[in-house]
Amino acid sequence: MKSFRKELTFETDKRIDFINITEQVEEAIRESGITEGLALVAPIHVTASCFINDSEKGLVADFTKWADKIAPHEPLNLWKHNEGGEENADAHLKRQLMGREVVIAVTGGKPDFGTWEQVFYGDFDGKRPKNVLIKVIGE
Amino acid sequence: MKSFRKELTFETDKRIDFINITEQVEEAIRESGITEGLALVAPIHVTASCFINDSEKGLVADFTKWADKIAPHEPLNLWKHNEGGEENADAHLKRQLMGREVVIAVTGGKPDFGTWEQVFYGDFDGKRPKNVLIKVIGE
Amino acid sequence: MKSFRKELTFETDKRIDFINITEQVEEAIRESGITEGLALVAPIHVTASCFINDSEKGLVADFTKWADKIAPHEPLNLWKHNEGGEENADAHLKRQLMGREVVIAVTGGKPDFGTWEQVFYGDFDGKRPKNVLIKVIGE
Repeated sequence: MKSFRKELTFETDKRIDFINITEQVEEAIRESGITEGLALVAPIHVTASCFINDSEKGLVADFTKWADKIAPHEPLNLWKHNEGGEENADAHLKRQLMGREVVIAVTGGKPDFGTWEQVFYGDFDGKRPKNVLIKVIGE
Repeated sequence: MKSFRKELTFETDKRIDFINITEQVEEAIRESGITEGLALVAPIHVTASCFINDSEKGLVADFTKWADKIAPHEPLNLWKHNEGGEENADAHLKRQLMGREVVIAVTGGKPDFGTWEQVFYGDFDGKRPKNVLIKVIGE
Repeated sequence: MKSFRKELTFETDKRIDFINITEQVEEAIRESGITEGLALVAPIHVTASCFINDSEKGLVADFTKWADKIAPHEPLNLWKHNEGGEENADAHLKRQLMGREVVIAVTGGKPDFGTWEQVFYGDFDGKRPKNVLIKVIGE
């Protein structure tokens, strides 16, 4: 069995924003030299998500609006986590809504994806660099 | 290390609907010949989910009602994704709420489940055939 | 390839409550003797979750409040699952919101975590013992 580990760094332009990282994930799997296995893609932070959905500009705007409706940023005093001076309770909740990680099948040295599957990094407390861990195991 | 790949096709009767696929997952794991490992079960589409919950008719109806309350289908103009003529923005959001994938422990050649764990395929933009990927790795 | 399986038992004090199980997960990975691989951590019950987030007291209170706002326990007749005498439909829904499982990279014999990543067991129909399965595969 082979294993491979890589960290990638992303920084969003906005507090809540999404970056399509499909190419970087494909590249990491190529670098791993693993042809059959599983790849884990997850932020090493607790206010961000990696997930798979469609790369369509309107939809990405919908994610932002929806996540803030379900777990509002304001009023800040809605959440106990913010009582100590933090302002990102909503980001911890949004991360639960959108999920932490994706596990991707590796087949023939590539991510085994359908036509519309694209990997996103979503940050809910962004505008600063955060790392995503890719771990691939297999043969 | 061994690996095994299989695609299954499902088609729901209703736009939002759920199919219990536990037997098909068990069969795929048997076919794999893998006795100890991990199995990934995920749709290769971005408006569907694979998840584990209880197989109870009332609950499955609750999933439909709940998902549509949290990410409503209508009014269609609630979501930017629908501006280009699509009508399934809600299905992309419901898929985030319900999750994309399950990772299942394989022990003694079987899914390592508790009494009530059943695997579901949920489609939020259904009434057409979609594929689920099962990838098993182990020994 | 090596594999390792362990069950842990947890019981929450309250109906909805969260227990930080990071140390037990670290210990299980140590016991496995696996230095490079993947670990699955998942309850074998369908009204509980394992997830990764920040260990901050206020945030944990926010999880309880938020989950009950998104999938209310009462009125019980809101959900069809409760018509047969059950009272835990909300717990099945909360488990979808918070997620079932985490998959953790194992690197150098340890969970490959960022500074703030802590593993939680969340029960949404608690006050009784439930089991969490840890399955580690790798080398």
